[in-house]
Amino acid sequence: MKIAISGKGGVGKTTVASTLVRLFAETHNTVFAVDADPDACLAAAVGIDDEQIESVKPLVELKEVIDERMGTGALYPINPKVDDVLDDYSIPLGNIRFLRMGAIKQGGSACYCRENNFLSAVMSALLLDKDDVVVMDMGAGIEHLTRGTARGVDVMLVVIEPSKNSVNTAKTVKQLAKDLGIEKVRFIGNKIRNQKEKEFVLNQFEADEILGFIPFDDDVWESSMDKGPAAEPGGELLRNMKKIKEKLLQEVAKGRD
Amino acid sequence: MKIAISGKGGVGKTTVASTLVRLFAETHNTVFAVDADPDACLAAAVGIDDEQIESVKPLVELKEVIDERMGTGALYPINPKVDDVLDDYSIPLGNIRFLRMGAIKQGGSACYCRENNFLSAVMSALLLDKDDVVVMDMGAGIEHLTRGTARGVDVMLVVIEPSKNSVNTAKTVKQLAKDLGIEKVRFIGNKIRNQKEKEFVLNQFEADEILGFIPFDDDVWESSMDKGPAAEPGGELLRNMKKIKEKLLQEVAKGRD
Repeated sequence: MKIAISGKGGVGKTTVASTLVRLFAETHNTVFAVDADPDACLAAAVGIDDEQIESVKPLVELKEVIDERMGTGALYPINPKVDDVLDDYSIPLGNIRFLRMGAIKQGGSACYCRENNFLSAVMSALLLDKDDVVVMDMGAGIEHLTRGTARGVDVMLVVIEPSKNSVNTAKTVKQLAKDLGIEKVRFIGNKIRNQKEKEFVLNQFEADEILGFIPFDDDVWESSMDKGPAAEPGGELLRNMKKIKEKLLQEVAKGRD
Repeated sequence: MKIAISGKGGVGKTTVASTLVRLFAETHNTVFAVDADPDACLAAAVGIDDEQIESVKPLVELKEVIDERMGTGALYPINPKVDDVLDDYSIPLGNIRFLRMGAIKQGGSACYCRENNFLSAVMSALLLDKDDVVVMDMGAGIEHLTRGTARGVDVMLVVIEPSKNSVNTAKTVKQLAKDLGIEKVRFIGNKIRNQKEKEFVLNQFEADEILGFIPFDDDVWESSMDKGPAAEPGGELLRNMKKIKEKLLQEVAKGRD
């Protein structure tokens, strides 16, 4: 199963992505956790320490290796069961394998088009066992969608908070994901403080498009100043994300019937 | 004076940008409010209604006109005092002129490199009277910096909230802005709830790099579900942003001595 997590900046994409990675790691063989934003912080949220993060070679460097060996523009089918090529470009943590799209560049030097294109190619080519999962934490906003970075995922999971702006972004994401041929676009309402906020979200989408809600958590806010790898997800977050995980599994199983 | 507002997704860039636009409009001749993110919502926050927003031609379309008339790659000095070329690509609201970089495209169709490049060229070429101001609301994260979209601004204003992640982004922004030759990079601490959070921000930067603080405002959160153009900024926000505006004016005056 391949899942991309998207939404407006600040809605909680990385919190959702890292919790899903931890939960799938309990039940699945290999979970590829992919940071698809040069400004993201999925690695720390998954529990990888800062020094190790520094040592991950960005995936885009694999492109140079492939181009050298096989010529520019080569397509490359990658099967993790028969090919260890990704090992050099990932950090293992239990059965989680963390990958990042690209490194931070110099100001004014370049866009991230090449990184996005290559990530898209690798993720499409990656043949998964049914016990393997990919969770991609996308950049804020919509450019990854107009670029098509997450083309080929089974589910585009859009995180929203109870604000008009994040709902507008989510609706744009839905439209652009359909353009990409992604059939399942689903929503999570995050930072919900009361019934009024829950209803606000419910009124914006079809009931079966919404996979669940996560209440606003003061502890998440408090711990966001701490240094070091993120703590284990809190009880409420975990409880709600477990339900969301089960729904995701059902959705994808349904799609395969 | 040309100011770019940046920072991690969700920190409050658009709130800061739109309030600055409103405040400069009280004292300056022309305020160019520029939405440099295809997913942004500066127009509504400034007070332009949804229908009008739809009618703004994206600035990138001006590129096609220029290319047609003058050949591809032409440089084009734009002086708003002698040239009304921008009129077709902006919405006036009092002495505010709203511009947006690019429209939403189809999923998988393209990146926004062309839009960013052209915006950068136009903003660099724009010759301002001392009574004119440009406020650019940048996209979340760091790609606009590796692209160099805001090259040539007088101040890069980075909004942070009291979280490790937003501080990390701000430090990266600072480094990349220096790469671009932007001399003044300044910070605003937003969503501050208590002394501990204020100190957290103070400990991350030099005292003279921090232009001010904005307390967490429950009203901003509450009103974020409302439809229609944003309400006037609340009292606390306005009071703090007025001080920040004065400091910005002093900083830029200092730079010209």
